[in-house]
Amino acid sequence: MKNEDFRRAGHQFVDWIADYFENMEKYPVLSRLEPGDIKKMIPAVPPARGEAIEGIFRDFERVLLPGVSHWQHPGWFGYFPANNSPASVLGELLTAGLGAQCMVWQTSPAAAELEEVVLDWLRQMIGLPAGLSGVIQDTASTATLCALLSAREKATGFESNETGLRIPLTVYASDEVHSSVDKGVKIAGFGKKSFRRIPTDGRFALIPEKLEEALVRDGEAGFVPACVVATVGTTSSGAIDPLRPIGEICRKHGVWLHVDAAWAGTAALLPEKRWILDGVELADSFVFNPHKWMVTNFDCSAYFVRDPATLVRTFEIHPEYLKTGVDAKVKNYRDWGIQLGRRFRALKLWFVVRSYGVEGLQAMVREHLRLAALVRDWVEGDGRFELLAPVELGLVCFRLNDGRDEGALNELNLRLLERINAAGPVFLTHTTLRGKYTIRLVVGQRTTEERHVRGAWDVVTAAAADVLKA
Amino acid sequence: MKNEDFRRAGHQFVDWIADYFENMEKYPVLSRLEPGDIKKMIPAVPPARGEAIEGIFRDFERVLLPGVSHWQHPGWFGYFPANNSPASVLGELLTAGLGAQCMVWQTSPAAAELEEVVLDWLRQMIGLPAGLSGVIQDTASTATLCALLSAREKATGFESNETGLRIPLTVYASDEVHSSVDKGVKIAGFGKKSFRRIPTDGRFALIPEKLEEALVRDGEAGFVPACVVATVGTTSSGAIDPLRPIGEICRKHGVWLHVDAAWAGTAALLPEKRWILDGVELADSFVFNPHKWMVTNFDCSAYFVRDPATLVRTFEIHPEYLKTGVDAKVKNYRDWGIQLGRRFRALKLWFVVRSYGVEGLQAMVREHLRLAALVRDWVEGDGRFELLAPVELGLVCFRLNDGRDEGALNELNLRLLERINAAGPVFLTHTTLRGKYTIRLVVGQRTTEERHVRGAWDVVTAAAADVLKA
Repeated sequence: MKNEDFRRAGHQFVDWIADYFENMEKYPVLSRLEPGDIKKMIPAVPPARGEAIEGIFRDFERVLLPGVSHWQHPGWFGYFPANNSPASVLGELLTAGLGAQCMVWQTSPAAAELEEVVLDWLRQMIGLPAGLSGVIQDTASTATLCALLSAREKATGFESNETGLRIPLTVYASDEVHSSVDKGVKIAGFGKKSFRRIPTDGRFALIPEKLEEALVRDGEAGFVPACVVATVGTTSSGAIDPLRPIGEICRKHGVWLHVDAAWAGTAALLPEKRWILDGVELADSFVFNPHKWMVTNFDCSAYFVRDPATLVRTFEIHPEYLKTGVDAKVKNYRDWGIQLGRRFRALKLWFVVRSYGVEGLQAMVREHLRLAALVRDWVEGDGRFELLAPVELGLVCFRLNDGRDEGALNELNLRLLERINAAGPVFLTHTTLRGKYTIRLVVGQRTTEERHVRGAWDVVTAAAADVLKA
Repeated sequence: MKNEDFRRAGHQFVDWIADYFENMEKYPVLSRLEPGDIKKMIPAVPPARGEAIEGIFRDFERVLLPGVSHWQHPGWFGYFPANNSPASVLGELLTAGLGAQCMVWQTSPAAAELEEVVLDWLRQMIGLPAGLSGVIQDTASTATLCALLSAREKATGFESNETGLRIPLTVYASDEVHSSVDKGVKIAGFGKKSFRRIPTDGRFALIPEKLEEALVRDGEAGFVPACVVATVGTTSSGAIDPLRPIGEICRKHGVWLHVDAAWAGTAALLPEKRWILDGVELADSFVFNPHKWMVTNFDCSAYFVRDPATLVRTFEIHPEYLKTGVDAKVKNYRDWGIQLGRRFRALKLWFVVRSYGVEGLQAMVREHLRLAALVRDWVEGDGRFELLAPVELGLVCFRLNDGRDEGALNELNLRLLERINAAGPVFLTHTTLRGKYTIRLVVGQRTTEERHVRGAWDVVTAAAADVLKA
C-alpha cells in the first residue's frame, strides 16, 4: 500500500468510526448471525495477490460488520462494560503507527516512563496509598495470576520457582469470586483442591470470620495459606468484600492479600464511593481495569503492588541479548509480568486522562450510578419484579417472581432474558445467585443516557408481560 | 471530545503517521534520552479538568516523541523486528473504534470466526500440516506457557490442575533456547531445576542424541519427561533445531513437542525455506509471531495445536455468567489461553494478508534474506571480522577479531557496538555465543532496502576502524 493510499484510507476509516459513534443506535446491540455465517463468507484459502484497501474495507462492512456485537452501543448492559472513547481510539492509533515494542526501557523510554507516571496518576485518582507501584497488564486475569505467583514465591521463599511447589499452599476467596482465580490457581500449580471458597453474607460479600476460621483450620491441618483474593465488585452481583477486616486477618496470619477491583475500581474515582476501598492499604496487590469502565479501550489493566521487588524476583530473566547499559537505572517492565513483549499502552491512558480530566471521568461515573439507581427503583416499584442483590454501584440484579417454584422461576427468567435480547436495542446478561437465575443490568457505556435506560426498562417490562402471559 | 473533534484529530493523526512513515529516516533509530528525562517533563498529578486534543498532541510530539525508539525505522537491525504496515495500522484502528471485547463467540461472532479462518490461512501459508487448530495469543511467551501447561496436564492426566504438580516432571530445550522457556517453567510450577538444557552443535542447534540421552537418563532416575521445546530460529544466532529427529524422539518417548518459531516461522512463507519446518508434523504445538516479521503490528502471536481439546481442558472455566445459548456449537476462545478478555486481533491480520497477498509477503521476506546474505558476504570478505554463526535466514552474527585474547575481544566488540549505535542511523544489539560477545544484525524491517544495509555496513566498518585505532 502506498503512503498516499494509507492517508486516504485512514481518513475514510476515521470518518467511518465517527459515523459509527453517531449512528450506533441503528444497529442491534448483539450480532444476529448464527454460528458459521461468517466463516462461510470468507474464502478458505489466503489470497495469492494483494488487493486494494477499498475492496478489503467493503468486505469489512459487508461480511464482518453484521457479525460484530456492539460493545459501544448505549444499549449495552451486559457482562461488564468495555467502553472506549474518541481520545482512547486516537491514542491507540498512534501506538499502532509508532509500532514500538516496549519490553525494556531502551526500546522506548517514553513508554516506560509514561507508564510509571500515568499509573501513579491512577493510583492518586482512586485513592490508593502512596508507595504502591503500578504496571499495565493486559487483563485482570493476568494481573491476578501475577498476584498468585508472587504470593506463591513469597510463601515459599522463592523456592517454588526453583523446585516447583513442594509444600501444600492454599488460596482463599469468596464463593462469588471471578473465574479468573479458578484459572489462576490451576496455571500457577496450586491445584483446584488448594482453593478454598469462603461463604458470603446476605450481600454476597465474603464473611471475614469464615475466612479466619478456614485459615486457622488449614494451618492446623498442615497447609500453608498463601493468598487471599478479595473482590471489590463481584461479577455476579457487584458485592464488595470488606477489605479492612480481611486485610487485618491477612496481616495477622502473614498471608498475601490481592484485591480484584477490575470493574468497581473505577467507581473509586468518586470521593463518595471511596469507601469501597476502605482498608486497601492492607493489600499486597490490587488490580482494576481502565478498559472496563474508564473509557480506555481494551486492553488496559492497572496492576499495583506494594513491593515491586517481589514481583520482579518472581518473573525476572537475564538473557544476555536483553541486557542494556542502563538496566541498573531504569524500570524494565519485561520483568513485571508474564509477557516479554509490550505494547505502548500507557499512551491511550494518558490521552484519556488528559482529555477527560479527573472531573470529566467522575461526572460520567456519577451519572452511571444515578441511572443504575433509577433501574433499582423501578425494579423495587414493580411488584412483578424482585431485586436479588443490593445495588452498590452500577449493576442491578433482578428477576421476575410471581411466586411459582424456584425451578419454574429459573425457566421463566431465562425466557424473559431471551425475549429482552431478541428485541435488538438492548443487551443484558445473566448469572445465578444462590441458585436463582438472575438478570444483570450494568450501566457503564460511555454514551448511555437516561433515555436509554428508560428504553431498556420498557423492553424489560414489555418482555415480562409477554412471558407472564404465555 | 465532540465527534467532530475526533474526526478532525483523527485525520490529523493519520496524516502524522503517514508523514512519520515518510520521514522516519530523519530520526535517530534509538531515543537519545537519559533515564528520567521523560518523567521530569510530565506533571506528577493528574489534570482535574479535561483539555482539548490539540494540546495533548502537542505534548505527544514535544515530550514523548524524543523518548520513542523507532522500531519501524529502516535502520532498525536490533533484537528481532516488530514490523508494522499501513494495512495493519488501519486494521488496528478499526479494532479500537469497534471496541469489541471478544472473549466468547457471542460477544462478536465475526472476531471468533475470522480468527479461525485467518489462522488457517497462516497454517497453509507456512506449510503446517492440515488439522492443526490456531488461536491468536499476545506473545510467544504466552503461547509457550500455554504449551508447557498443556504438556503438564497431559503428562499428569489433568491431575496437576486438580492437586498441583505431585510428580517430578521435566522439560527439555537447547542451551540456546529463549528466556521465555525459563520464565514458563517457573510460572507453570515445574521449577527451574526441572529444566534440562541440551547441548548444541557447531551451528547452535540442539543435538538430538543428547536429548534422547537426557530423556532416558531422567526416566531411569524417576523423572517424568513432559515437554521438549524445539526452536526454529534461536534469538542469539538464528539456529534451527532439527524438528524431524527431535519429533521422532518425542513420539518414541511420549513427550509433548512444542516448536518455537516466533521469528523464523515467517520465513516458511518461502517454499525454498520450508525445510526449516521439516518434521513439524510431529509437533503437538507450534508458535510464530506475525507481529515480528509479517508486518502485523504488535501484538499478534499465532499458536497452533494438534489437539485443541487438551488446550481447552487445561484452561476451561464455566461460570454461569459466561454461558451462552450457542456454547455447544461455537469456539469460545476464552478457554484457549490465559486471559478471559480478548481484542479483535484477527482483523489486522486479515487486512495484512489481503493487502499484501501471500506473494507480496513472500517478496518482502525474500528480499530481507538477500540483504542478510549480502551482510554475511561483507563480513566474510573483510579480514578484520569473523562470522560467529551460520546465516540461515535474516540474522548475521559477527565480531571484530584481531587475534587478541577472548576477554579483550569481548571488550573490543562491546565498544564497537556502542560506537555503532552512537552514530544514530542504525541500531544493532548483541548476545553471547559460547562466551563470545557477538554483534547481531537482523534484516527484517518493512522499509529496509539495500541502501540501508549498505549504510549500516558503512557505519559498522567506520566504527570498527575507530575502535581498532583507539
